[in-house]
Amino acid sequence: MKEYNKVSPELIEKFKSIVPGKVYAGEEINTDYTHDEMPIYGKGMPDVVIEATNTEDISEIVKLCYDENIPVIPRGAGTGLAGAAVAIEGGVMIDMTKMNKILGYDEKNFVVHVEPGVLLNDLAEDALSRGLMYPPDPGERYATIGGNIATNAGGMRAVKYGTTRDYVRSLKMVLPTGEITEFGATVSKTSSGYSLLNLIVGSEGTLGIITEATLKVITAPKETISLIIPYENLDECIATVPQFFMNHLQPQALEFMEREIVLASERYIGKSVFPQELEGITIGAYLLVTFDGDSMEELEEIIERAAEVVLEAGAIDVLIADTPNKKKEAWAARGAFLEAIEAETELLDECDVVVPISEIASYLVYVNEVAERFDFAVKSFGHAGDGNLHIYTCSNDMEMDEFKKQVAEFFEDIYEKAIQLGGQISGEHGIGHGKMGFLKKYSGETNMRLMKGIKEVFDPKMILNPHKIVD
Amino acid sequence: MKEYNKVSPELIEKFKSIVPGKVYAGEEINTDYTHDEMPIYGKGMPDVVIEATNTEDISEIVKLCYDENIPVIPRGAGTGLAGAAVAIEGGVMIDMTKMNKILGYDEKNFVVHVEPGVLLNDLAEDALSRGLMYPPDPGERYATIGGNIATNAGGMRAVKYGTTRDYVRSLKMVLPTGEITEFGATVSKTSSGYSLLNLIVGSEGTLGIITEATLKVITAPKETISLIIPYENLDECIATVPQFFMNHLQPQALEFMEREIVLASERYIGKSVFPQELEGITIGAYLLVTFDGDSMEELEEIIERAAEVVLEAGAIDVLIADTPNKKKEAWAARGAFLEAIEAETELLDECDVVVPISEIASYLVYVNEVAERFDFAVKSFGHAGDGNLHIYTCSNDMEMDEFKKQVAEFFEDIYEKAIQLGGQISGEHGIGHGKMGFLKKYSGETNMRLMKGIKEVFDPKMILNPHKIVD
Repeated sequence: MKEYNKVSPELIEKFKSIVPGKVYAGEEINTDYTHDEMPIYGKGMPDVVIEATNTEDISEIVKLCYDENIPVIPRGAGTGLAGAAVAIEGGVMIDMTKMNKILGYDEKNFVVHVEPGVLLNDLAEDALSRGLMYPPDPGERYATIGGNIATNAGGMRAVKYGTTRDYVRSLKMVLPTGEITEFGATVSKTSSGYSLLNLIVGSEGTLGIITEATLKVITAPKETISLIIPYENLDECIATVPQFFMNHLQPQALEFMEREIVLASERYIGKSVFPQELEGITIGAYLLVTFDGDSMEELEEIIERAAEVVLEAGAIDVLIADTPNKKKEAWAARGAFLEAIEAETELLDECDVVVPISEIASYLVYVNEVAERFDFAVKSFGHAGDGNLHIYTCSNDMEMDEFKKQVAEFFEDIYEKAIQLGGQISGEHGIGHGKMGFLKKYSGETNMRLMKGIKEVFDPKMILNPHKIVD
Repeated sequence: MKEYNKVSPELIEKFKSIVPGKVYAGEEINTDYTHDEMPIYGKGMPDVVIEATNTEDISEIVKLCYDENIPVIPRGAGTGLAGAAVAIEGGVMIDMTKMNKILGYDEKNFVVHVEPGVLLNDLAEDALSRGLMYPPDPGERYATIGGNIATNAGGMRAVKYGTTRDYVRSLKMVLPTGEITEFGATVSKTSSGYSLLNLIVGSEGTLGIITEATLKVITAPKETISLIIPYENLDECIATVPQFFMNHLQPQALEFMEREIVLASERYIGKSVFPQELEGITIGAYLLVTFDGDSMEELEEIIERAAEVVLEAGAIDVLIADTPNKKKEAWAARGAFLEAIEAETELLDECDVVVPISEIASYLVYVNEVAERFDFAVKSFGHAGDGNLHIYTCSNDMEMDEFKKQVAEFFEDIYEKAIQLGGQISGEHGIGHGKMGFLKKYSGETNMRLMKGIKEVFDPKMILNPHKIVD
């Protein structure tokens, strides 16, 4: 294993001279920095936390760390779920959240320039106020844009609009050597050498620190409407999904949810939103679907066709959320799934697998069968439109070690199955340090050798966010 | 410079035992293999040409070449424009065109599995016969899919549907070491380590040989309609472009063309399609726009709005090509631009620059001004919707050396300007060996070092398609 140096008092003084008032060491460091949103992947304290100010300062700081062989860990809002933004061997954590300016729009070219610490929610609202939309819409709206780029965040609207990767046009970067460079350009199309830009998207802060981003925006659709579609069971619910696309229906969002998770969420938000029984049938699963368009007439026509399709496919009813309030309530219940699980659970881990949409139902049957062998509870929900499932293992009465042991065994089994079905181990939450073993196992030696090689090209001393993705 | 070995008679025998009847050496090699579609980037003969049969055979052949330090050059249909698919130092050229089976559709997951030698045109037609669309639509429809992936080909529909990159889900590869591996999966979304998949797209056969691809398809829109929109001059014509997007109009294709190139094309196809004078005004430039949708009513409504927008923006008229024949004629004229130029030109070179759409008009004014200093003629057209311009230098009376010298000087000037405006040096044709000097100049030392490093990770002996993109 590679050896790193600790941060010396002299080096701390040098940092302070570069960014006075922005350097925290030892007991000044908030313990929140030891973990992200998934406590089980929490680790030790960094030696130093520095609030980032601008590209040049970051470059100077990273150069010093490079010279002295000290780990550097870039961190956004800490909303990750795989332990990507925690220090494993001390070092300097660079908190990017104060670099949070929206630098400006280029409305003729449909791009916005931002600093990486801008919160997704702030960008989304700011864009909307200009009639524009930044489409990526992960459940966690208080994540930073930099973090979204680092994990290629997806979210609810990926089914129609794609993931963060599809909206990143150019990035200003500080490399692990401290060099400043830029990948990509404002333009939408390029064939000018290897796509270093696409290598950065999803690289979880291991290849460089993003200090500025140019992102594509689109004109915001003028109207949206949501449907709650109840089914007797998950099988019929999931079987409907390809029917939307085959019938030329392009939902903006297409989420599935099982009865249990809906009940937990309604307990959490203190409100009943989804029907639990209809026509004497107990509802086992739901689709929550949003369509967007430029007029209500257009949407009404779409909804009529959609209703026909889903009723034909076995839906028990179609409930239309056509007022802002009804839409908000339905999506608030969906948005609160993770918080609802967290509120009821002491020990928690997550598998963020992605499988072909045709395999979702059989995969979940498999997952639930395997889960019976273990002592934790399993709660799942996910993006039906793109096959990305969030499978949570929850326990309130297991010992931590036993929980971790059982979860490892469970995950090994269900990842294996996902890969067999043509899936991948993470749809949008990334690898961090928490899922490295699984990445290694399922990517194979050849691909891991290529990834490790690429890491060394960018970061010959392996100082940037060490022990994440590859080591 | 790296030294390679020549192919020995013994090695040729080994190749013949792997793929009997598919190995051509010396005078058996067709001289077409010495160049692609741009003769100026033609080079020497490969020592051997092998018609590819399957992944395993390619792997065996590449392993032998790796052991013996012999260049391997994968080649599709040879329709490239930057000299990517030619041998520079002899070696083994692998002709992929016979691996041309469409292996099957997975209609529930909206993907198609293909061998890389499938022609774009064949895939497009086959998909359409099932009500599906493979959206990338480069002008050259007799290119292979493998070649399209290798250059991240864009084409007419990129403005709405994106480029080839957006449709590549997974690739089976033979690496320069001969190892067989796979990047990506059927799924639409992933955050599972560095995107090796995206690194291959646009890498022009320098990192691995694509032997199978899984591509996204979508449901084909049921109706399309095209508009020919004449303007007095290019400035007004281009200024209209952002207006489409601002007004929630999403054309499938949005091409601009100047008077000169239209006349040349009409001479070539022997038919007059575009109006040359209207209301006493000489037409200086045109937009050719296609909209798609699921019903003619929907399209008629769109066209009405579009007509309002463009007339407001200075268009002289809006001509609707609503019959299959009219549409075909308009697009045939556009599709024949390159052939029309080739038919009238002895010496030809091309700059495939991409600039932000807001800069197209001023950029072309600049290009035409600079062109006046040189002895060749300049003919341009391009994708107004994404800023990708094809600028051809044409001469019938210059000496080759003088032509090359002047073109180099001209390109240097206009690439520089494009970069200043926030552009990139190639939008869709790639770097090959023809544009390497410019890539080096405008990517900067740091990015070139990273690209070179990545190349060495994949190809430690630098045997795969040497002297392309990096060397």
